[in-house]
Amino acid sequence: MVGYISIYVKLLFINDIKGKDMSYKILTIDTIKAYILNIPEIKSYLEDGDIEISEIGDGNVNFVYIVTNKDNQKSLIVKQAVPYLRIAGEGFPLSRERINYEIRALQFYEKLVPNLVPKIYYADEVMSLVIMQNLSKHIIMRKGLISTTYYPNFAEHISTFLAQTLFFSSSLYLDSTEKRTLIDRFNSNTELCKFTEDFVFTLPYMEDETNDINPDLLDEAKALFEENEFKKNVLKLKYIFMTQSDALLHGDLHTGSIMLNEQESYVIDPEFAFVGPFAFDIGALIANMINAYISHFYRSEGKAYQAWIIETIKEIYTQFETKFLALWAEHPNSALLKEGFIAEKELNEFKAEFMKNIFRQSIGFAGCKIARRVFGIAGVEDIRGIEDKQKRKEAELMALRIGKDLILNYEKIDSLEALIERLEVV
Amino acid sequence: MVGYISIYVKLLFINDIKGKDMSYKILTIDTIKAYILNIPEIKSYLEDGDIEISEIGDGNVNFVYIVTNKDNQKSLIVKQAVPYLRIAGEGFPLSRERINYEIRALQFYEKLVPNLVPKIYYADEVMSLVIMQNLSKHIIMRKGLISTTYYPNFAEHISTFLAQTLFFSSSLYLDSTEKRTLIDRFNSNTELCKFTEDFVFTLPYMEDETNDINPDLLDEAKALFEENEFKKNVLKLKYIFMTQSDALLHGDLHTGSIMLNEQESYVIDPEFAFVGPFAFDIGALIANMINAYISHFYRSEGKAYQAWIIETIKEIYTQFETKFLALWAEHPNSALLKEGFIAEKELNEFKAEFMKNIFRQSIGFAGCKIARRVFGIAGVEDIRGIEDKQKRKEAELMALRIGKDLILNYEKIDSLEALIERLEVV
Repeated sequence: MVGYISIYVKLLFINDIKGKDMSYKILTIDTIKAYILNIPEIKSYLEDGDIEISEIGDGNVNFVYIVTNKDNQKSLIVKQAVPYLRIAGEGFPLSRERINYEIRALQFYEKLVPNLVPKIYYADEVMSLVIMQNLSKHIIMRKGLISTTYYPNFAEHISTFLAQTLFFSSSLYLDSTEKRTLIDRFNSNTELCKFTEDFVFTLPYMEDETNDINPDLLDEAKALFEENEFKKNVLKLKYIFMTQSDALLHGDLHTGSIMLNEQESYVIDPEFAFVGPFAFDIGALIANMINAYISHFYRSEGKAYQAWIIETIKEIYTQFETKFLALWAEHPNSALLKEGFIAEKELNEFKAEFMKNIFRQSIGFAGCKIARRVFGIAGVEDIRGIEDKQKRKEAELMALRIGKDLILNYEKIDSLEALIERLEVV
Repeated sequence: MVGYISIYVKLLFINDIKGKDMSYKILTIDTIKAYILNIPEIKSYLEDGDIEISEIGDGNVNFVYIVTNKDNQKSLIVKQAVPYLRIAGEGFPLSRERINYEIRALQFYEKLVPNLVPKIYYADEVMSLVIMQNLSKHIIMRKGLISTTYYPNFAEHISTFLAQTLFFSSSLYLDSTEKRTLIDRFNSNTELCKFTEDFVFTLPYMEDETNDINPDLLDEAKALFEENEFKKNVLKLKYIFMTQSDALLHGDLHTGSIMLNEQESYVIDPEFAFVGPFAFDIGALIANMINAYISHFYRSEGKAYQAWIIETIKEIYTQFETKFLALWAEHPNSALLKEGFIAEKELNEFKAEFMKNIFRQSIGFAGCKIARRVFGIAGVEDIRGIEDKQKRKEAELMALRIGKDLILNYEKIDSLEALIERLEVV
């Protein structure tokens, strides 16, 4: 199925998709129609008819538009990056090249897991623009989790996404040259990597003006900033994030980067993509499932729903590991391995230790991703959106306890059972 | 002293040094004179006079010439890469861009440790050529070690080289963008990285036609190839080599890449340069000192000289660590650290664990670098050059025992004392 991926890495990355217009301009509601109808494949997709364009208000980083042809029920998404952070305005410059990394990652994913990412209809790195499938029948997973919706197929889908994208972009599959070519294509995604370095691994644990602290928790925040033992492990994990080049990561795989319904799941917005540690995407996902779990102590008291979340975390990791190891077994030659180098028994021992290391680091990253949401710039709706002030405060403190516990102990948490136990006694 | 390095990383790497002639051609003894005298700064350096050009026979990879003006005692080295491995001929293609990485590394080193690398007079990436200082009063260290010469200043020099070059190219000093820029500049040195992956971490431990096995040790080689326990750790170390982006490495820091005399030491030939694990350069150096140590059980029975080698290994590591930590203390802000993030005590604990990890990995890499010399393609003169066949065989077996022991136990060897003990009971 994916035998052509290594050739794909070589070829695709030489020929960027580029538009005909060689200069960048920011599109608006008024100019967007002319632009898209000038692209033959888009014109033909939309067919003739009454085209309506509206901006999606929640595009924090980029401008995002929905284009609909009401007559024939066709629609698509136009996403354009501007040279600043959209939500903050021109006073917060941010290179518009960030969207290139999203385009490149989506192109990579499309070959591997076409049913788990939105289809790209057109991409133009010069215009910092991408036109893609409108997921009109799906909602942002975070909202689904808040409203206690069950997604029976999600663990199956996302474990496939993780196994496929991480394995096929790693040195366990690619050869040495292909891996370096991949690194080259994402290495300059510096600004967004630095966002993570700052806002996941640094500022939420110290006095900083970017923090957004619940006024009811000022003392607790102050106390946290003076704790130092867990920060040693935050530094370790930050160093791994910055220097460990395992595989192409989505880079921001929280439940706001997933759109789904009960049948289908899609991963969106990989603009933080870069070659980093396997465990970071896995950890981000587990963290956000745990945040949902925490929130339901205070939102719904829905024990059954919490049990489903825990079961889903287990399923995601177990299936990820099984699928990843199956891919590894199917591909005995890579930058790392040469068939015949080592006997089966010892190779399997090596793999088991390798996977255990991914698991442990996933727990550590999950801890950071949970803890940073408490006092850092970016909270999560699951918890910050709890309306009762007392309950919100308790939920935040629980998130802090769990996050810190996972950070402090990640090197010792060796199994899903050990993880779940810690979640159940909070 | 090095406050300008971060700016330097940014600037230097934008403006490559380029010659005026925009096409590549291979120079010969006959054409080299016209080429170099066409470069004003070289012409002026050599002044007028009787210029003599001779090829250095031991350039295995590149063509290397000495240019001498006999009248005024000036001389220099001209080194040009050809699109194949020089010693193997055109049947062994090798991208001539490899020399760019050597030029870039030497330029980086020159700013940090100008007295420990040859001076570059001229560099031309288009011609794949570099003109540099002729180290006429220095010999290749490996030869010096074979002839039991003492180098009382070597540990001081090389520990400075390691501390300066590793620290200032790491995320402990550079900011996030500078680090990625550095990675970009060396990431495509794929062919030479692959040499290491193959010839240090893979082929010397399995049946392969590239191996060069002493006919007296065919049974021992066969037995080694069937051992599997130590290969698990070889895989671990290979994976670290391939994916851990700590700092700019020389990449081939054995005693053949050092020229020295009793007063001065120079590091040469960094064509394997890339951003990799701190421990790899340190391990390469320790390995080659250990090879010299082993050789003197059979060459000279020079116990005093062996004691000096052991003392030098200790001094190198101790001084490296002291200097590296001093630099770290002087620079409290970096991609990794933000002043005020963590208290002094815990920061020092973090650093201590960080350094211990570098030490352990250095031992592991040293083990591979020793073991691969026994049956692999590239032996070392120290041991393979022992004329008495019985003694050579014993020395090779000792190297194998030591190499394997260090590979198997590197995660447990926590101190120089523990390392030295293992060397003394072989």
